[in-house]
Amino acid sequence: MTITDTTATETNDPIRNGVDTATLFATLDAVKQAPEAAKFQFRAHNQWVSGTHNRSTITDYSGVGEERSHERTFVFDADHPAVLIGQDHGPTPTEFVLHALAACLTAGLATIAAARRVKLTEVRSTVTGDIDLNGILGLNPDTRNGYQQITVHLTVKGDAPAETLREIVQQSRARSAVYDIITNRVPVTIEVNTP
Amino acid sequence: MTITDTTATETNDPIRNGVDTATLFATLDAVKQAPEAAKFQFRAHNQWVSGTHNRSTITDYSGVGEERSHERTFVFDADHPAVLIGQDHGPTPTEFVLHALAACLTAGLATIAAARRVKLTEVRSTVTGDIDLNGILGLNPDTRNGYQQITVHLTVKGDAPAETLREIVQQSRARSAVYDIITNRVPVTIEVNTP
Repeated sequence: MTITDTTATETNDPIRNGVDTATLFATLDAVKQAPEAAKFQFRAHNQWVSGTHNRSTITDYSGVGEERSHERTFVFDADHPAVLIGQDHGPTPTEFVLHALAACLTAGLATIAAARRVKLTEVRSTVTGDIDLNGILGLNPDTRNGYQQITVHLTVKGDAPAETLREIVQQSRARSAVYDIITNRVPVTIEVNTP
Repeated sequence: MTITDTTATETNDPIRNGVDTATLFATLDAVKQAPEAAKFQFRAHNQWVSGTHNRSTITDYSGVGEERSHERTFVFDADHPAVLIGQDHGPTPTEFVLHALAACLTAGLATIAAARRVKLTEVRSTVTGDIDLNGILGLNPDTRNGYQQITVHLTVKGDAPAETLREIVQQSRARSAVYDIITNRVPVTIEVNTP
């Protein structure tokens, strides 16, 4: 069961949870007709500042067959806190991963609930990631570099029974890009230029 | 070979690439004596705003045996662009993953280079992620939800031969938390509260 499991046409109150369900269903129909439209490439451009401090710019991407830009250019600093030999100019890179997971699950929740005619009143979450830095410090070869486990503590309220809300969470998990990236393997290639 | 492969004591010019190598080596020595100090928990707190728009707050974490806070509270919005049924109030969740990867590799590069007495003059990267949204749209069961591949285009300049710079990149990859999270599996648990 996916977000397409409700009627694909609705003219009364198509905006639900801030999601324009008419546009959502029209988009689904369009992609069904032209699956190539759903191929996107996202990008981040990063520049080292000093030490563990660096800055990414997110603006351009491609999708639906053409180059695109966000309405604004987004800029994010990352750093380490002093206890990890940085100056705390931004969150650690690993904290951005937790934000990405929370954001992906929450966006999916609102969209799927809208498609299923459920009005949400509140969605909030705390995502925790446990990490043993003996890994990245190279002090214990048996310790992985990344998170050993991540837990999402999610609160959802809306005009549907708890069971329905839980099913919507389950469907959001089943269709989350970031959940898939974290829980499964993504191949990463690093091309190095040393001019 | 890890970042501990140089002499653990240096009194002349301990700041290199903005990294205080004296503190770095002191930290490594301290963690060797007390490995439990390296257990950290990072957190993101997320609140749904409307539609695909939501907002994370990153401030508290634990490590070295106690509760800690960043010097500032960091707040990040995520959203989808209009073409993906959002209002473009922030990058997509998947774009934050690319930022996290670039930031992690870059922080590692600067730190490892400092430990190896290499002065960097420039590090910049573009990270691209290819995704087919037929996955998250539920239109093709054979299409994964997350990125099909990620490529890091990295430029590194410094006062060392290209071969040395490439070795430093390789070591950064080998000790990157976010690279590990993306290329390997992390278990994720979702606990749902429906009050």
